[in-house]
Amino acid sequence: MATKANSVPIPTVIEVDPFVPAEKQKGIHNRWHPDIPPVATVKPGDVFKVQCVDWTGAQIGNNDSSDDIKDVDLTKVHNLSGPVAIEGAEPGDCLVVDILDVQPFDKMPWGYTGIFELENGGGLFAKEFKSRAAKAIWDFHGVYASSRHIPGVRFAGVSHPGLIGTAPSQELLDTWNTREGALIAKHPGAVPAVAFPPEPVGAYVGQDLPDYIRAKVYKEGARTIPGREHGGNCDIKNLSKGSRCYFPVFIKGANLSVGDLHFSQGDGEMSFCGAIEMAGIITFSCSIIKNGIEKFALKQPIFLPSPVDPMYSAKLIFEGISVDYHGDGTQYNMDATVAYKQAALNAIAYLQKLGYTRQQAYLLLSAAPVESHVGAIVDSPNACVTLALPIGIFEDDILPREDGLVAKSRGQCAIRTDGLVDS
Amino acid sequence: MATKANSVPIPTVIEVDPFVPAEKQKGIHNRWHPDIPPVATVKPGDVFKVQCVDWTGAQIGNNDSSDDIKDVDLTKVHNLSGPVAIEGAEPGDCLVVDILDVQPFDKMPWGYTGIFELENGGGLFAKEFKSRAAKAIWDFHGVYASSRHIPGVRFAGVSHPGLIGTAPSQELLDTWNTREGALIAKHPGAVPAVAFPPEPVGAYVGQDLPDYIRAKVYKEGARTIPGREHGGNCDIKNLSKGSRCYFPVFIKGANLSVGDLHFSQGDGEMSFCGAIEMAGIITFSCSIIKNGIEKFALKQPIFLPSPVDPMYSAKLIFEGISVDYHGDGTQYNMDATVAYKQAALNAIAYLQKLGYTRQQAYLLLSAAPVESHVGAIVDSPNACVTLALPIGIFEDDILPREDGLVAKSRGQCAIRTDGLVDS
Amino acid sequence: MATKANSVPIPTVIEVDPFVPAEKQKGIHNRWHPDIPPVATVKPGDVFKVQCVDWTGAQIGNNDSSDDIKDVDLTKVHNLSGPVAIEGAEPGDCLVVDILDVQPFDKMPWGYTGIFELENGGGLFAKEFKSRAAKAIWDFHGVYASSRHIPGVRFAGVSHPGLIGTAPSQELLDTWNTREGALIAKHPGAVPAVAFPPEPVGAYVGQDLPDYIRAKVYKEGARTIPGREHGGNCDIKNLSKGSRCYFPVFIKGANLSVGDLHFSQGDGEMSFCGAIEMAGIITFSCSIIKNGIEKFALKQPIFLPSPVDPMYSAKLIFEGISVDYHGDGTQYNMDATVAYKQAALNAIAYLQKLGYTRQQAYLLLSAAPVESHVGAIVDSPNACVTLALPIGIFEDDILPREDGLVAKSRGQCAIRTDGLVDS
Amino acid sequence: MATKANSVPIPTVIEVDPFVPAEKQKGIHNRWHPDIPPVATVKPGDVFKVQCVDWTGAQIGNNDSSDDIKDVDLTKVHNLSGPVAIEGAEPGDCLVVDILDVQPFDKMPWGYTGIFELENGGGLFAKEFKSRAAKAIWDFHGVYASSRHIPGVRFAGVSHPGLIGTAPSQELLDTWNTREGALIAKHPGAVPAVAFPPEPVGAYVGQDLPDYIRAKVYKEGARTIPGREHGGNCDIKNLSKGSRCYFPVFIKGANLSVGDLHFSQGDGEMSFCGAIEMAGIITFSCSIIKNGIEKFALKQPIFLPSPVDPMYSAKLIFEGISVDYHGDGTQYNMDATVAYKQAALNAIAYLQKLGYTRQQAYLLLSAAPVESHVGAIVDSPNACVTLALPIGIFEDDILPREDGLVAKSRGQCAIRTDGLVDS
Repeated sequence: MATKANSVPIPTVIEVDPFVPAEKQKGIHNRWHPDIPPVATVKPGDVFKVQCVDWTGAQIGNNDSSDDIKDVDLTKVHNLSGPVAIEGAEPGDCLVVDILDVQPFDKMPWGYTGIFELENGGGLFAKEFKSRAAKAIWDFHGVYASSRHIPGVRFAGVSHPGLIGTAPSQELLDTWNTREGALIAKHPGAVPAVAFPPEPVGAYVGQDLPDYIRAKVYKEGARTIPGREHGGNCDIKNLSKGSRCYFPVFIKGANLSVGDLHFSQGDGEMSFCGAIEMAGIITFSCSIIKNGIEKFALKQPIFLPSPVDPMYSAKLIFEGISVDYHGDGTQYNMDATVAYKQAALNAIAYLQKLGYTRQQAYLLLSAAPVESHVGAIVDSPNACVTLALPIGIFEDDILPREDGLVAKSRGQCAIRTDGLVDS
Repeated sequence: MATKANSVPIPTVIEVDPFVPAEKQKGIHNRWHPDIPPVATVKPGDVFKVQCVDWTGAQIGNNDSSDDIKDVDLTKVHNLSGPVAIEGAEPGDCLVVDILDVQPFDKMPWGYTGIFELENGGGLFAKEFKSRAAKAIWDFHGVYASSRHIPGVRFAGVSHPGLIGTAPSQELLDTWNTREGALIAKHPGAVPAVAFPPEPVGAYVGQDLPDYIRAKVYKEGARTIPGREHGGNCDIKNLSKGSRCYFPVFIKGANLSVGDLHFSQGDGEMSFCGAIEMAGIITFSCSIIKNGIEKFALKQPIFLPSPVDPMYSAKLIFEGISVDYHGDGTQYNMDATVAYKQAALNAIAYLQKLGYTRQQAYLLLSAAPVESHVGAIVDSPNACVTLALPIGIFEDDILPREDGLVAKSRGQCAIRTDGLVDS
Repeated sequence: MATKANSVPIPTVIEVDPFVPAEKQKGIHNRWHPDIPPVATVKPGDVFKVQCVDWTGAQIGNNDSSDDIKDVDLTKVHNLSGPVAIEGAEPGDCLVVDILDVQPFDKMPWGYTGIFELENGGGLFAKEFKSRAAKAIWDFHGVYASSRHIPGVRFAGVSHPGLIGTAPSQELLDTWNTREGALIAKHPGAVPAVAFPPEPVGAYVGQDLPDYIRAKVYKEGARTIPGREHGGNCDIKNLSKGSRCYFPVFIKGANLSVGDLHFSQGDGEMSFCGAIEMAGIITFSCSIIKNGIEKFALKQPIFLPSPVDPMYSAKLIFEGISVDYHGDGTQYNMDATVAYKQAALNAIAYLQKLGYTRQQAYLLLSAAPVESHVGAIVDSPNACVTLALPIGIFEDDILPREDGLVAKSRGQCAIRTDGLVDS
Repeated sequence: MATKANSVPIPTVIEVDPFVPAEKQKGIHNRWHPDIPPVATVKPGDVFKVQCVDWTGAQIGNNDSSDDIKDVDLTKVHNLSGPVAIEGAEPGDCLVVDILDVQPFDKMPWGYTGIFELENGGGLFAKEFKSRAAKAIWDFHGVYASSRHIPGVRFAGVSHPGLIGTAPSQELLDTWNTREGALIAKHPGAVPAVAFPPEPVGAYVGQDLPDYIRAKVYKEGARTIPGREHGGNCDIKNLSKGSRCYFPVFIKGANLSVGDLHFSQGDGEMSFCGAIEMAGIITFSCSIIKNGIEKFALKQPIFLPSPVDPMYSAKLIFEGISVDYHGDGTQYNMDATVAYKQAALNAIAYLQKLGYTRQQAYLLLSAAPVESHVGAIVDSPNACVTLALPIGIFEDDILPREDGLVAKSRGQCAIRTDGLVDS
């Protein structure tokens, strides 16, 4: 008969508490550096779990004010669990990582999406909207999320880690710091900043370390904001549970770290903290392909997506081109980022016709399983980007009808205590 | 019993011959201008067919040399069929267009994909590759295309019009010319050009017109290269047969024009003439929603995609970030175009490991039903874009395997008679 | 440039006229027999087209009366185009058939779905409903069909041949006649008949044949109604354009025949003539795997479905079990056919709540891309079968709502001139 | 910040231990009867969890012998958790049940699929194979299952409750017992039995009950083997996490019960215990539509499937017709069950060519996300049923190739200690 004896739970190699500030916990770090030692080691073929705090490390609460977003300390992000070393991995190899599952904690069945202040975090439209903090809390009910702050929608999550990667070598780290430093130097005083140099303030490695190593890591460690050649903060929603990833290995052991779990995210994650951010548990299995970087011309991770993502086949699709027609009408040259923005602004304007506030629409497009394709990128001067809104996530019919759209009163998302919203 | 009497074929409102140069045919035009009169008028609800030459107007042949690509006359493109007026459409309305079918001519069951010369047409990697003309001829076998120039692949087409749009008003046309002129002025002598001003040379309207109107159209008419607010050359592969589109109407009658039919295209259409270009027949039905621009906040077309596109669920996905790591390593600031390029270059390098030449890989990624998503566009300074290659289009197994990839000899695509290829 | 010279249309090996009675045309036959000589021969790898009349051979008209259905001569069906021999095919081989396309004739852009009389053709509910002839005419608009007889729906076709197969050997033919004869003998005088023995009346082979062969074929030839080991009238909607099929070969040349083209069909094709029946053109390519019957344990065809079928992901699913709860309440023993019937009757009752007549609902479920799964077939005594109705084919919202369903007046399908309908 | 205070876990209304025999636990019952009182009551809109033992109540172990399957006590099945009453539900209403999630216990990350003895449980081929007990243990790794007993496959689960339903009224229960009794009476001594009458031996209700009620329930309570009008053991794999179901309500409170959780199942669940059986946790939310039975003509549940099932688009499809060509060649009359069997036997024969034993193939087809469609059910005398095998679940290429199939040695599943297998 079924017995406990023959039922071995999958081991958890890193445990955290989602209600405790990250900087008080073991097994967490928030900078990339080759000298951060592994906190756990696994063998190829092992199945194991890693627990993660939310990316801010418990700074954001389940409540109806966005003050915590306004005041978030971004020197402390992203909080990653790891590194986990894989036995036998060596520079030049390919680390095959199966993302077997991504789940929230039972004890924390909620997540959040935030619009950050122009001066603290920003987001795609930080300047255009003069962003003021806003947020939506999402409740998780099994495979679905819904929000008291954005009524009328419910959708199945494409859960995934926003941030996952191997540790850089010292040489690669130096390359990052050099090239990003050059960009920063070209845009002094930019708000929001164009990039983030190493920053000892807020840096954290939840391990006992010799002081000189800790100092080196804090001084040189790359910030976790952007994705890079090792993976990192790619925020690819398709990297979901069930996916297989191929990472380049830069140092012995590979040193895999993960965090920034998302219950769901739209392509682009436009509001910066645009996914449904959550704390949770990720299940992995790893193997190694020797000399894989050469075998697969691996400049950056490649992956096989999961067979189990939600299928919302009916969609309403918005286009954008590289003309700032929502702004001053400037013509840009084949700029897919500008085109993405116009498509998003078209979708936001449409959702406002249905009664959503601009803040709600911005949050919704960031968090829902929205798809954005690069339509064309060769028709000078206009790149064309599309944004596809799944119709099935709405309770109401949102299709364009003869009689126009029905605007309902849909309240507002969580805003600042002082009532300020973007403008 | 079944009789001819009760079987009424769908009427064809514009007929063309795909083997005759476009400038010798009626019902074709190659510039956008409000003063081009409609060549046909339909009622809302009518189903009708429009025949189209290929976008170059028969300049490219089914042969094994790319000299025709090298020497293509781009002042003569794109050759559009139309305009077709829809009774009752007025400025401010929304024109609903059902794209009911897109088929090649029975008598011309082939198409082509081209890499254009750096100095004549270019393409996404025109500069990086110093592009020299190359092409692949694709044979159509029912729903599938295959090419003697790119062996080992066969795929079902997502057939669609690369170019479709309503006529601009004079005011909108002036806006286009002004903003694009400003961009050109900022990049004098750029190769490839950043944009294309009105160009009387090569301009064509296949109608009897008063001289002063013809002169005005040729002088002011917008080039058809970029997509714009009215639709136009959006090259959105999802605008496929079975789709419903909502266009803004800018002039009385709406004046719909269409051309640049594609048997298949990858997201991005990277090699410029990257789709499988074909001549063919498109079937439409139109209706009007009064005052639709206001009702739907319609700055640019929106659409509902077709339920009948190919479903290739297994994919291999490449990433790119806004660092030119395939080139000089420069760090760009949130530039999705740069990120798209890196993802594409990663995919090209991978395909080369399988034995495809760089030219073949470039053409294949342009033409096959490849999907490109904007992963994340908020993680400064790196936008992240993905490119997904459907595994099912390959005869061989292309997955990353322990033993590496098997490079087969796969010949070469059609190149210039003088043997020059890009470098 | 593009020229006619290098553009070779795909050859048509059998031509027919959809408006001429089948028995007056060449290249058509309506019985299965090994002695019917091929009317065309192709080589492995050739791409070729075959034209087909509708299954009745032009007996049904595009009009608003079902009298032609009532009086249809079923001794003359199904009218197949062929046989086509494939060079090199021998008994024991596997014939690989790519179904590259299935299209209606341009000159006949319509099809029909019929409910047959209890005494002439029947259908799944012939007895339950005491069926009287009814029909719906469907107009084809590109990828879509809609019907003036069933308003409020429009759907993309999963076009396919209802009937396709290789010729039986004499031995296999004898087996068929023996086993079906035994079944008939067990159910003397059944209405509708349980099976159909060879029937010289109405038999037809559109070739010049020696009298003794014609007599043999007419006397022994198997009727085309059921599917059998060689394929035949399987009515599998997934055998659609883009599919690859593997047929066992029983005689030299394989002798492939095809007909009964369907623009669309629901799983089960419940009203017998339940698909959208059409005349049209099918495009093939064939190859041979030597000794394939042994290699693949090939008792009956296997196939790879097309990647291009419509994707209607949102569905409303009805269940049925093997209890005749719509009738006399009898408990059957693991009978999936009874279970299928209950699921269908549940769906019909639901559609009637929306205002469709029972005849319209029966026709719609037969013709639309409805999916029927065998849920469970081991839970004695109740098999469980489901029927999934795609929501996206309806203009109105058909989901179960708090307020119930909205019944609209939706007219009626074509019925008999004398006004009789089933009861 | 994130705090425990504002994070309320979803409440569990029934708790069980998967390692303790079901008949020693509260909140479990294994017969259907209106007089079983609810063990929990929820309000419309509440989200709640229900824990379930596996269907046998811990009789089957994670080991390499099938003796536990051989000796399973089937008088004790299925063990259901419930009933749960929903406030306000009354006879005639429709109970809307959202299945929000289905997960195994963390502490029991495995399940099993069994072939039962001909004389004890049977299965679809119990007679044909003279079935002897066999089983496969499946390990769960996040969304995937794999088995040491069936090497070379791995697939994502379509997790669902095999058994879910509302309680019958006394009248409905009487109808069941009457009609099934009549069937049993017609097949005296059948092995396997055609149906199962009420059976006091093994009956269980895990509540404190007055003796007379317990006696009545045990004497009259319907067995849980078949699905019926209230739902029950429908074993519909598409009733997966994310689905919405509409159940008829027969008694006050509706009294929902659930059990027989499946990690995955193929359409048909052919080996009887053919799903991957597991203990686990299901998350629900319920609401009520007053008078829904009348509103929706609700003879049996209807449902909306989940958007999140695995998408394996590439499939190999086998056909079967209602001729027992794998057995004695008998011709059946439109019998979809016979047709399903032939399709399954064709698939099993194919898998054996790849080196799987017949037992492994039988188990695999039962457990994997195989799809079975009713192709045609009107082509007398042959119903046609298909079985689609997803290619992506196999590590090796299983497509039909020129060179035939590669048979690998794949061991054997768990069999009886005495070594007996079916024959």
